Formats: sequence, C-alpha cells, structure tokens
Amino acid sequence: MAKAPQNAISPTRADDYPEWYQQVIRAADLAEVSPVRGCMVIKPWGYSLWENMQKVLDGMFKATGHQNAYFPLFIPMSYLEKEAQHVEGFAKECAVVTHHRLEPDGKGGLQPAGPLEEPLIVRPTSETIIGAMYAKWVQSYRDLPILINQWANVVRWELRTRLFLRTAEFLWQEGHTVHATSEEAIAETMQMLDVYADFAENWMAMPVIKGAKTPAERFPGAVETVSIEAMMQDRKALQAGTSHFLGQNFSRAQEIQFQDPDGNLQFAWTTSWGVSTRLVGALIMTHADDDGLILPPKLAATHVVILPIYRDDAQRAEVLEYVQSLRQELTALSFSGGPIQVEIDDRDQRGGGKKWYHVKRGVPIRLEIGPKDIAKQAVFMGRRDTGKNQPLPRAEFVAGLPALLEEIQQNLYARALQMRQDHTRVITNEADFRDFFTPANADEPEIHGGFALCHFADETSLEPLLKELKVTPRCIPLENNETPGTCFYTGQPAAKQAVFAKAY
Amino acid sequence: MAKAPQNAISPTRADDYPEWYQQVIRAADLAEVSPVRGCMVIKPWGYSLWENMQKVLDGMFKATGHQNAYFPLFIPMSYLEKEAQHVEGFAKECAVVTHHRLEPDGKGGLQPAGPLEEPLIVRPTSETIIGAMYAKWVQSYRDLPILINQWANVVRWELRTRLFLRTAEFLWQEGHTVHATSEEAIAETMQMLDVYADFAENWMAMPVIKGAKTPAERFPGAVETVSIEAMMQDRKALQAGTSHFLGQNFSRAQEIQFQDPDGNLQFAWTTSWGVSTRLVGALIMTHADDDGLILPPKLAATHVVILPIYRDDAQRAEVLEYVQSLRQELTALSFSGGPIQVEIDDRDQRGGGKKWYHVKRGVPIRLEIGPKDIAKQAVFMGRRDTGKNQPLPRAEFVAGLPALLEEIQQNLYARALQMRQDHTRVITNEADFRDFFTPANADEPEIHGGFALCHFADETSLEPLLKELKVTPRCIPLENNETPGTCFYTGQPAAKQAVFAKAY
Repeated sequence: MAKAPQNAISPTRADDYPEWYQQVIRAADLAEVSPVRGCMVIKPWGYSLWENMQKVLDGMFKATGHQNAYFPLFIPMSYLEKEAQHVEGFAKECAVVTHHRLEPDGKGGLQPAGPLEEPLIVRPTSETIIGAMYAKWVQSYRDLPILINQWANVVRWELRTRLFLRTAEFLWQEGHTVHATSEEAIAETMQMLDVYADFAENWMAMPVIKGAKTPAERFPGAVETVSIEAMMQDRKALQAGTSHFLGQNFSRAQEIQFQDPDGNLQFAWTTSWGVSTRLVGALIMTHADDDGLILPPKLAATHVVILPIYRDDAQRAEVLEYVQSLRQELTALSFSGGPIQVEIDDRDQRGGGKKWYHVKRGVPIRLEIGPKDIAKQAVFMGRRDTGKNQPLPRAEFVAGLPALLEEIQQNLYARALQMRQDHTRVITNEADFRDFFTPANADEPEIHGGFALCHFADETSLEPLLKELKVTPRCIPLENNETPGTCFYTGQPAAKQAVFAKAY
Repeated sequence: MAKAPQNAISPTRADDYPEWYQQVIRAADLAEVSPVRGCMVIKPWGYSLWENMQKVLDGMFKATGHQNAYFPLFIPMSYLEKEAQHVEGFAKECAVVTHHRLEPDGKGGLQPAGPLEEPLIVRPTSETIIGAMYAKWVQSYRDLPILINQWANVVRWELRTRLFLRTAEFLWQEGHTVHATSEEAIAETMQMLDVYADFAENWMAMPVIKGAKTPAERFPGAVETVSIEAMMQDRKALQAGTSHFLGQNFSRAQEIQFQDPDGNLQFAWTTSWGVSTRLVGALIMTHADDDGLILPPKLAATHVVILPIYRDDAQRAEVLEYVQSLRQELTALSFSGGPIQVEIDDRDQRGGGKKWYHVKRGVPIRLEIGPKDIAKQAVFMGRRDTGKNQPLPRAEFVAGLPALLEEIQQNLYARALQMRQDHTRVITNEADFRDFFTPANADEPEIHGGFALCHFADETSLEPLLKELKVTPRCIPLENNETPGTCFYTGQPAAKQAVFAKAY
C-alpha cells in the first residue's frame, strides 16, 4: 500500500483551522502583515484575485447602469456627526488626521505640526461625504436616479485583525445611489444583492444565502440591510456582501432634496452596497484544502501551468519548443471565464518543489512535459481540485480544456454546496440548538455546528442564549421562507426562519 | 456673412487661460472641488478618462513584466525619517494620523481620542513602506528583480490646488522595482520612461520630450530622475510622468540587501516611476478648445453619440429603430483604441442643448438623425476635432468610421505637435531669453513664451535669472542633444541643451 500522503499545509484544517488559514495564505504568497498595525500587504498572487474580482464585478455594475466616480479619502469630523446611528457605529474605529505637516522635534526626530482646524476622518465608508456632494447635485426629479460606484480603500481601526477577513485598511467598492421613490430604492437594493449572489455563485463557485439582516445586525443608519452569507469549511458563516436600503435617513441628515414633477420638495431615497477584499478570504476558506489554495478557474490569473522537464541543453531546447507551441495553442482558447491563461515555469529548481509551488498557489491545471511525453505527443496532467494525475494525448487535452475548466468550476461549486447542505439543520427547540453549537470536547477548538434554520419571534429575547453560545442570526432568508412556525426558544408564533451560526 | 460663432466656454483661452481650464472641467462635468480642503471629486465622465488610462497603462506594465500589488496607506513616521533627502522633500506636506477613535467632547460633538504611540503619515509616495517589505523579501540574487506596481491614492498637503493638476489627494500608479545591478535598474528606469512616452503620444495624442531632470528638480532621494514634458496650449510645460533611478540610496536606508552568486552581501539597486490623475489635466490643456473638451478617440468612453430627432411618437418609433440598428452595426466595429462605443442620447431636451452638451464633453463624433436622414439612408455627422458638419450616406459613414477615428487621433497629435514646434526656440543669449519669457504687457496675464532650448553650463549660476522670470529647467532632452555649445547666460562651454519653460 502507498503511504498516506503528507500534506503541504501544516497544520491541517482538522488540526487547527485558523492557523491552517494563515498557512495557506503564506504558502500561496497571497498577503502578509505589514509593519503598520492592522494593515496588510496584498502580494501579486493575492492581488491578481482581487483584480479579477474587480473586473467581473465592475462589468456587472456597468451592465446594471452604474458609473464609477471617486470621492475624497477624508471626511470632516462634523459630517460624520450628522447621522446619529452612523457615527455611533463608526466613531470607535476611526483613523483621525489632526495635522498637515511634520517638523523637527529638536531631538533629531520629527513631530506632527500644522494642526487642522477640524480633524479629518479617514473614510470608514463614504455615505456622509458622498451624500454631501449628492445634496449639491440633486435639484429636480430629472437629476434622479444617481447610480454611482466607487473603488477605494477604507480604514476601520480594528484591534484584532486577520489577513483579508478583518484588516484596518481594506480595499472595496461602495455603490451609492439616489432615487425619487422608496420602491425604486428598494428595487436597487435587491438588484445589487442579486448581482453579488450571481458573482459569488457563478464566479467564486461559492454558494450563498440571500437574506435580510435582523435589526441589531443592520448597517448603522440603514432601514434594511440585506446580505449574502456563505458557509466556510469550519462551518462558520461569512458575510460576503451587503446592500443597504437607507430610506430617507441619510437624505434627511444631509438634505438631499429634489423637486418632484408637481413642484414639491421631497427628500430622496438612498442605497449603498459593498463588497471588499474580504472576498479573497471567503474564497480561500470555501475551496482550499490541506495542500493549499484551490482557485475556481473563472477567477484564476493562470489556468494552466506547464513545467518543462529535461536533463540537458539539447532536451531543454526540444522541450521548450514543444511547450511554447502548446502554450500558443492553448492561449487561443477561451471559456466562460475569458481567454485561457497559460504560464510556463522554467525556473531552475529541482525535485518536486516546483510542482508543490503551484499546488499551494491553487493553479487549476498543471502539465509536466518531458521528452517521453513529446515522443508520444502527450501531456501529463494534474488537476488541482481532485488531485488526480493522468497522461493524455496532447490533441485530446487541448480539445477538452475549455470544458474541463467549466467542469472544475462546477465541481468546486457542487462540493461547497454539498458541504453547506451537510451542515445545515432545521432546529425547533433550545436543546437541539445548544447541542448543535456546542463542541463535544469543550477544551479543544473543534469544527462543529453549521447553519441552524430556526423560526424565531423576537431577536431581543434570544440575546442571552446567543451570547452564551457565541452565535448570531446571520439573516432571514428571502427564499423558501414563507411557512410560519413557532419560535425555537420561546414557543411563540413566528413568521419566518433565520439562519443562525457562529460567524467571521 | 455668418455671424462669428459664440463659444460654449467663457472665458476663452485667449481671455483667461486658467479660468477657461476650470470652466472646461465644469462644462464637461469632469470633476469638482469637495468640501474637504484640496481634495477633488472625480465625476463619472472624468473618471472614465482615468479608467481608460489605467486600462492601457496597466496592460503596458504587464507586457513589460510587472505585477500589481497593494501596500498600506499609512507609513510610520520613523520610516519616513530614514532617507534624509526624502523626508526633507515630503515633511512639509504630510497628512498625519494621530488618533484612532472619536469620543464625545462633552459639548454634544466629538473629539479625537485614542492617541497612537507613533503618528502615521498618509502616504505621499510609498518608497519607504514598500522598501521595508522588500528588505524582508530580498535575500538572494535569485529573488531579483522585483517588478511591482501599485494603483493607489496618495496625499500631499497642498495649499494652492487646481483640479487634476495639483490636489491634496490624487490617484496614481507607482512602480517600485529592485535589481541586482546598477545597469539593470537604469535600463528599467529608461524602459518605463519609454512606456510613458508611448502612452502620452500614442494614446493621449500628446507629444512629449523625454529628458533628464537637473539635480535641483530630482525626486527627493533619487540619483537620477527622467521625465516626459509636454507643452500645454498656454505654452507652459507640464511634467506628465517621472521615472527615478534611486541608486542604492533607498536600499542603504532600508537595508535591502541580497547575497550575490559569490556569496557576498550587496545593497540592491532600486527604481520608482509614476503617473497620476494629473494626466487628465494634461489631456484637457493639450486638446480642449473654446467650446470645451476634445477627447482623443483612443481614450474616449464614447466615440459616437447619436441624437435622435423627431416631432411625435410615430417619428420617434421610426427614428429610434433606425438609430438602434445603426448602433448595433457600429458597436461591432473596432479600431486601434478597441471596440467602438456608441451612445444614443434620447433624453427629452429641446433646442441645441443636447448637441452642445456632447460638444462640451468632447465626444469625437456626433450624429444627428431624423426622418429626413432616414429617408435618404443617411446620417448628419459632426466632428468635434475640426468642428465640421456634413451629411453622409449611412453605409459610407459606417465603412469609414474606424479610419475616421484613427484620423482624428492623428489630427489631434499633429495639431499639438505643430503647436509645440511653433513655440519652441533655440535661444543663445540672455536678452533673447528674457524677451521670450516676458509678456508684452506686464499688467495683463497673457499667453507667451514656450520652450526655450538653451545650452547651459551650471544650474546654480542661472538661479537668479530663472527665479526672476519664473522659469525652470524642465529637462535635458535625451535625444538630439549631442552637440556642445556655450551657456546662453555665462558663455561657458556647455555640453548639453536643456528645455526651459514656465511650468505647471
């Protein structure tokens, strides 16, 4: 019998999931912590994922009528104060600019100088500064709707940070729209939720549940927040995108008013919606395994990596000619994720190191090609998603590649969906709820629980139980949630189920 | 005789160039000032220009082997102190973060709280924070070269700001590379200058002079700075892109060291290079006229705008069907700037307003189409660059459109080049130099001067004269600059000519 294979990532998921996550990022060279507290450095391979996400999402935003613009990084402190709940939500985690130059401190170093009249906040989100501009731009119903998106960095001063999942600075997009009617703003809110779900499922291969947040979990200042929630491999939930119907809260605070066709002055209805580099963390925790990252082909910067194998210069020349012609053939192809991207890795490295390098980085398909393969007009192919290796006639591989990439994409999605289904339970009483969210061995971190689908009557009454178990209501699903029942905790009549889970 | 046409932009360039510039931006809805001192809001039409610039430049950077990454917005104050000239250059214009939350001030407002142990600088440029990471990443010659670019926002606290040209926050890209040898780093510096010149000339249709900066004009900390310099319509120079050979200055300050193949520890050689949203300002001042913006087709988000003309619903149906089929036909075409983008503007607006709206926004080609045109299977075309209007058979227009866009692109470049040639003079003595840079009427702002090509021996000796005339040495051209001469001011032997000009 073959020995049990050793894994490329240590610890494994079962051993220590949080540490496994950090090690996958390190092994795939996606990002690392920076000397600036809470801020990360996104390295090229990690940034390529964000770039590809941006490209797809940007196309989806434009297809739904949105345009990009750019607003200031800084927000005057007084702007933040205008919407009471909003400032309550963000005041505790703001980077504050108080000076505009440095001067010698007399001890050979520098000190801040030039105090500002009013402190500036580095944007944690841009409702208030964008709203101030919209108040100027909107005069008449003819100026509506405004459908603008911004790609930007934002800062929320977090003390406990984790690469991609929670960092003081992160990259994101924030859509900010203004409408003449409540209906239109709600339709926009839901449309963008659908865009996010479409992106998560069809590009990230990550199944999501669309739902409404409970009041306590809403965006500060929102009337309604809807989100997409995904289950990570440790069965925790990750909020992967949010879309907010802001009602007239911000338009009243900021005086975004328009004259309607009858000449009456009305407050406008606004929305905002965003996804961030957090999605890269979600991608990792949805697909990666104990050998490292696994990329869904539709977001991979490289679909096929070719590793030429040779012993001497003569072989090298022969092999490189073969793989270069193969690359040319492959890059002429495309699939639903766009043109096929091929990399030849001819670095001077011996042993299995080069193969494992690409395994850990999650490249969907590896080809090892040496003189023997050339003699047979063949390739030796390794699939990252299944780990299977097999020789294939070159022509067959080439002809089948687009379909193979689609298959891998589907396979990853199906696997993640199966995982979520396996760990989703309808729960109707407290005992089962407690049992579901309690690890068998309380002393050891252990993967347990999942999504509990429970009817519930009132969020507040659940608070003590949820706090005790470290569980939160993730969302009230929008679909398949029409049947009333009784609250799993209080026994009261309950209209809807919510998804309960431990969460990132 | 026809009356002299009235211009869409007031004042005209001849009347008041700086104010004309602001009015072009306003009329084209490119950007506006924000309530945050010195920060601008880039509106969708302006942002589309930056997006298109980004897309082209990003492709050029990748084609020359660079990858994108992302580094922190904040730089610890102590990092900035490491390179003496560098901190000298930036200390006076830094936004300084000193606190990480807000708390009630007891008077119903907020105040900064949670003082940081070490103040953080909002990056004015990222050599120091990126260098700190490179010092960790570089161990061996095998780790070199590092070829990374970052798309980011940066902040330089400017007191006198102008939209796009000089703003406290701006968007840019900054390339940062590390090499094993001086030769390689210099080659990289020059390669990126060529990339910038290629982009400026072949995409922006803006002729540039490639040259080396004189020591006083170098980037703080650089051994050599090379730049591309363009002449604006008011004959002032605008530095449109810079590329810096940093020698070992930053690698010594930051300890970026590698083991060479012989096992010796060496300091690496670094470069940095950047262009910014300033290019949008350069684009405006190169091509716009007294009717507003003129876009080079290769950077326009819309190449053709169609204005349907009709009197009633029946006509409307007929006209819309015609223009929609025309749009379909046109968007199947492409030219060297990519697929042809067509917009139908069917907003309910009477009079010439809609036409002028697109004139002011600089759309290369307008089509006005009504029932009479349809009857003749024709279009009525207006060219933004020449201002000429003419009817054309539909088939002829369609077949000729890609070539027409190339012609417009070439025409804009040729016009700008002619303008520069008309206002470039070889000057060999002080009297002519003074004369060239002195307006005829000292009381009135007036467009005068241009590029003076002068042999010069020593920058320092020129200082009083240059200060008096508000002229700077823009660069020492790299091409056609082999013939020695005598300094126009001191009469001393001089190896090279420099371009002298007033500048943005």
